[in-house]
Amino acid sequence: MKRKAVVLLSGGLDSTTCLSIAHKEGYEVYALSFDYGQRHSRELDCAKEIAEYYSVPHKVAQIGLFGGSALTDKDISVPDYREDSGIPVTYVPARNILFLSYALGYAEVVGAEVIFIGISSVDYSGYPDCRPEFIEAFRGVILTGTKSGVEGNPVEIRTPLIDLSKADTIRVAYENNAPLHLTTSCYRGKDSACGTCDSCMLRIKGFAEAGIKDPVKYK
Amino acid sequence: MKRKAVVLLSGGLDSTTCLSIAHKEGYEVYALSFDYGQRHSRELDCAKEIAEYYSVPHKVAQIGLFGGSALTDKDISVPDYREDSGIPVTYVPARNILFLSYALGYAEVVGAEVIFIGISSVDYSGYPDCRPEFIEAFRGVILTGTKSGVEGNPVEIRTPLIDLSKADTIRVAYENNAPLHLTTSCYRGKDSACGTCDSCMLRIKGFAEAGIKDPVKYK
Repeated sequence: MKRKAVVLLSGGLDSTTCLSIAHKEGYEVYALSFDYGQRHSRELDCAKEIAEYYSVPHKVAQIGLFGGSALTDKDISVPDYREDSGIPVTYVPARNILFLSYALGYAEVVGAEVIFIGISSVDYSGYPDCRPEFIEAFRGVILTGTKSGVEGNPVEIRTPLIDLSKADTIRVAYENNAPLHLTTSCYRGKDSACGTCDSCMLRIKGFAEAGIKDPVKYK
Repeated sequence: MKRKAVVLLSGGLDSTTCLSIAHKEGYEVYALSFDYGQRHSRELDCAKEIAEYYSVPHKVAQIGLFGGSALTDKDISVPDYREDSGIPVTYVPARNILFLSYALGYAEVVGAEVIFIGISSVDYSGYPDCRPEFIEAFRGVILTGTKSGVEGNPVEIRTPLIDLSKADTIRVAYENNAPLHLTTSCYRGKDSACGTCDSCMLRIKGFAEAGIKDPVKYK
């Protein structure tokens, strides 16, 4: 029987690379996305197409909770990229905590032994919940708070991109033939990527460093 | 300005006692309940009435994820009470992890400094996510994975019932004039409580030990 994995799939570059890794390793993949009121909800259409590309089941969970972030609140604008600006206004409270909690519940329900999450502590936007110490703390929650943890076979969290630059991630995606043409990264969520928000800037620099052409259109 | 608290309110005895404690301490309370497909969804009506009783805002979050538990899956029956039976079939994967994650996001959004959760490690049903070591691990997640944690003012988790027996909890509720007549505990979720499931048994024993009359009807 194939081992099962829950893959957190936002529809962006990193999570799609994670899915390509899980696929290559032979896991039976369950893709999980979230509708949390993000203004870039276009990524959910991308996630659907990417899951279809890999022919894996895809669940979209609704989280109708958040305001207070530039990614969810239309009254706060998405800023252009700046170096070293601390925790940015695009921070969404407890986002990865909720995503991992859902994935954990889902993993125990379907009997998956591993969760893939495509966070990186190298090229990231300054979010606290993208760092290795956060993942380590969450492992403590699995060990103490779940049936699988208490019974000695805790669901594992895999972060294969944690030490990779965006360029390295793009190289891995390219080697794995990941469908990068189906991904979206722009926080502004229009039909064409803006090319100036944090997320676009990291993507553009990454493709340039990797020496690979970005198949996605910018305005 | 009043300090704010998010109170996880299931509509049962314990969470209602927690709300009475937060109310007594003068917090501005935000009540949060979950619709996770529980067969005892009657508790959501109770939660609504309890929030109205205290005139506090009440949010019900949808979690459409879980099967695999006797509390959410109609094909698994709710067993009668047994002593020492390990983690029971009424275990819902990652339930309190998800509840706390939601509460944490909500707390950061509304600016609450504390979350109240009515778990007890004394009279409980054998769930791993009701123990102090789980709460301690979750504190690690707040410290490493949230803005409030990283910036040195982490959202606090209060578990005022953690060391109380059910009888002690009932005594506290009684002293605080908590509206116990509006609460429900039965896992089977009918109009009258069954009186034989884990949750009913703990409640009945608790009221007997406390020497207080349970205002709720049993069949």
